[in-house]
Amino acid sequence: MRILVLGGDGYLGWPTALRFSARGHEVVIVDNLARRRWHLERATDSLTPIGSLADRIDAWRNISGQEIIAHIGDVKDGEFLERVVGEFLPETVIHYAEHSSAPYSMLSRAHAVETQTNNVVGTLNLLFALREHVPACHLVKLGTMGEYGTPNIDIEEGFIEIEHNGRRDVLPFPKMPGSLYHLSKVHDSHNIHFACRTWGLRATDLNQGVVYGVQSNETALDERLSTRFDYDELFGTALNRFCVQAVIGHPLTVYGSGSQKRGFLNLRDTLQCVELAVSTPAALGEFRVFNQFTEQFSVLELAELVSRAGGALGYKVTIERYVNPRVEAEDHPHRGGLPGPVRADEAGHPSRLNGEGHPVQRDGLPVSLADTGHLDRGVGHGVVV
Amino acid sequence: MRILVLGGDGYLGWPTALRFSARGHEVVIVDNLARRRWHLERATDSLTPIGSLADRIDAWRNISGQEIIAHIGDVKDGEFLERVVGEFLPETVIHYAEHSSAPYSMLSRAHAVETQTNNVVGTLNLLFALREHVPACHLVKLGTMGEYGTPNIDIEEGFIEIEHNGRRDVLPFPKMPGSLYHLSKVHDSHNIHFACRTWGLRATDLNQGVVYGVQSNETALDERLSTRFDYDELFGTALNRFCVQAVIGHPLTVYGSGSQKRGFLNLRDTLQCVELAVSTPAALGEFRVFNQFTEQFSVLELAELVSRAGGALGYKVTIERYVNPRVEAEDHPHRGGLPGPVRADEAGHPSRLNGEGHPVQRDGLPVSLADTGHLDRGVGHGVVV
Repeated sequence: MRILVLGGDGYLGWPTALRFSARGHEVVIVDNLARRRWHLERATDSLTPIGSLADRIDAWRNISGQEIIAHIGDVKDGEFLERVVGEFLPETVIHYAEHSSAPYSMLSRAHAVETQTNNVVGTLNLLFALREHVPACHLVKLGTMGEYGTPNIDIEEGFIEIEHNGRRDVLPFPKMPGSLYHLSKVHDSHNIHFACRTWGLRATDLNQGVVYGVQSNETALDERLSTRFDYDELFGTALNRFCVQAVIGHPLTVYGSGSQKRGFLNLRDTLQCVELAVSTPAALGEFRVFNQFTEQFSVLELAELVSRAGGALGYKVTIERYVNPRVEAEDHPHRGGLPGPVRADEAGHPSRLNGEGHPVQRDGLPVSLADTGHLDRGVGHGVVV
Repeated sequence: MRILVLGGDGYLGWPTALRFSARGHEVVIVDNLARRRWHLERATDSLTPIGSLADRIDAWRNISGQEIIAHIGDVKDGEFLERVVGEFLPETVIHYAEHSSAPYSMLSRAHAVETQTNNVVGTLNLLFALREHVPACHLVKLGTMGEYGTPNIDIEEGFIEIEHNGRRDVLPFPKMPGSLYHLSKVHDSHNIHFACRTWGLRATDLNQGVVYGVQSNETALDERLSTRFDYDELFGTALNRFCVQAVIGHPLTVYGSGSQKRGFLNLRDTLQCVELAVSTPAALGEFRVFNQFTEQFSVLELAELVSRAGGALGYKVTIERYVNPRVEAEDHPHRGGLPGPVRADEAGHPSRLNGEGHPVQRDGLPVSLADTGHLDRGVGHGVVV
């Protein structure tokens, strides 16, 4: 299958490209290297040492004998993207080419505009390119559980049946996310839904929980195939930052009550979800939405998990509370209403994981702490909180 | 009151600026003259002869003794907009500065990107400027009934109470609009809602039906104060185009079954709605949504109305059917479920019109046909369909 991975140099995009290449698919990557540029500008970096995209691709060729083609360019550049799509004629596009940081989007007017423009325009460009060149291509778009916000009703997968004044309809699930970044993803979902029902395109929107872990079957083959591990204040998730804080002896930073509950899944499970979505595509004209996570933890539970695991490794780990800078319902009452851990269902529903997924604790340690053999090496790199 | 009218050179913006100036408010206009530029590029124009913005403002000064200040600039330019807001410190902002053509947004990738970028970025810039300089300022944002699309349940005003699996919440009404322009307005509504609940801003979102008519109390004072009357394929609404077609002897162009029902309101009623919203603002942190139209017609009913009115004026009017280029539910079953004509309610609800509004037929003629004494003069201007 011809698979185009937008954002294929990123944390999830690179292991995704490797996975499909390993399966024998023809893989083309598009990336503008934005994440690398942001780190350069802020003098931060991935904790795992990652090579340039060209070096990674060379390493993969040497190791697997498979060729991955990369185009360096911006999905905001509609002509560039249309040229890539028109020449490669992908059968599947996996779209990770979005700005992905909620705190970044809230820094200033310029950051908000940059985030929403990049995501909305990139996705619009993609929809027009697909319509023009490969209208039957299956678009797999990575979204986030954060799009839903914290409503007081059970969160469904993209749509909800509403009965009102004696009539019924199945309508998009109303979303009230907590940042301008998350809103950009909501905008994208609405635009993609429109393209499916109006132009007959087909798409799967994967609303994933927070992804953690740095190892997939492929990245584990060779250090040169590593994916990134961000732990800075803009791109590092709470779990990653806790792991690094534990190792360097900095108190774990918990904002607010710490009772904010989120869904989590391992990088390996993300890849499995994406593979399942790709192998059983949406129908023509269908906009399909799946919510995906394997476990739920509160921020405080995460901190305690890392604290225990760090303690077992001989680190002295403490937890410190700070005022929550976000306006959010920390204790929204619907926790139990979130869909449970994703598992394989009997119908082989493609949003479900086969088996139980990879739990966050393995041999009593947080996966990230166990996976990153690089953590100790990283300590010398400087400020990490 | 200090009132900033974004898009104050436009079809609705100019009469709005006049109205508030006539009431003695301090009025500042921002406009990038985009509509005039688009007409220049396409060799189309307003049927009513309108002066330059400077000439209009001079005329208004001569006639009323009131001063309106205008800043020519683009709301996409965040620094410009922030400077205007920071210097004027408006107590109310009325935001019409959006690309407003569904067909334009669907012409090509570039047009779609232009429409969504202009609307989303302009509104984001405005939200940040308000937050920075006048967080208590009341934002009145013009939306459209078209944002809702055609669901199979009654359309509510912005929000709907949903009961699901034993819990309830009041959530944003799910929207499935029919063009990328309408989607840009949905994106804006989501961003504004976020700014209200997260930053404590206050806003009123006015989802109006199709506005028709060219006369307000103020524009009627002098021909130099006229507002525009667009009848071209991009900016002319069906009613305007039918009126012009009737006068020049071109068959009225009805696409599809003509059973697509829409809400309509007179320009005078738009102004009354906006005045009511401004005089009783949303509370701090509140995002308030009102749906506004006075009558509903199907496209075919509109054509028949114009045909009868034209006939009474001595024109020979015929109706011709064409294939509908839009993907839309022409006969969605919920017509009756749309909110009825807006009228004053007993609580003086500010979204309601006082009295009955202005019906589309006046003295047996469509208002637009009656209002535009310019119609006959316009015939010589060339192609109008």
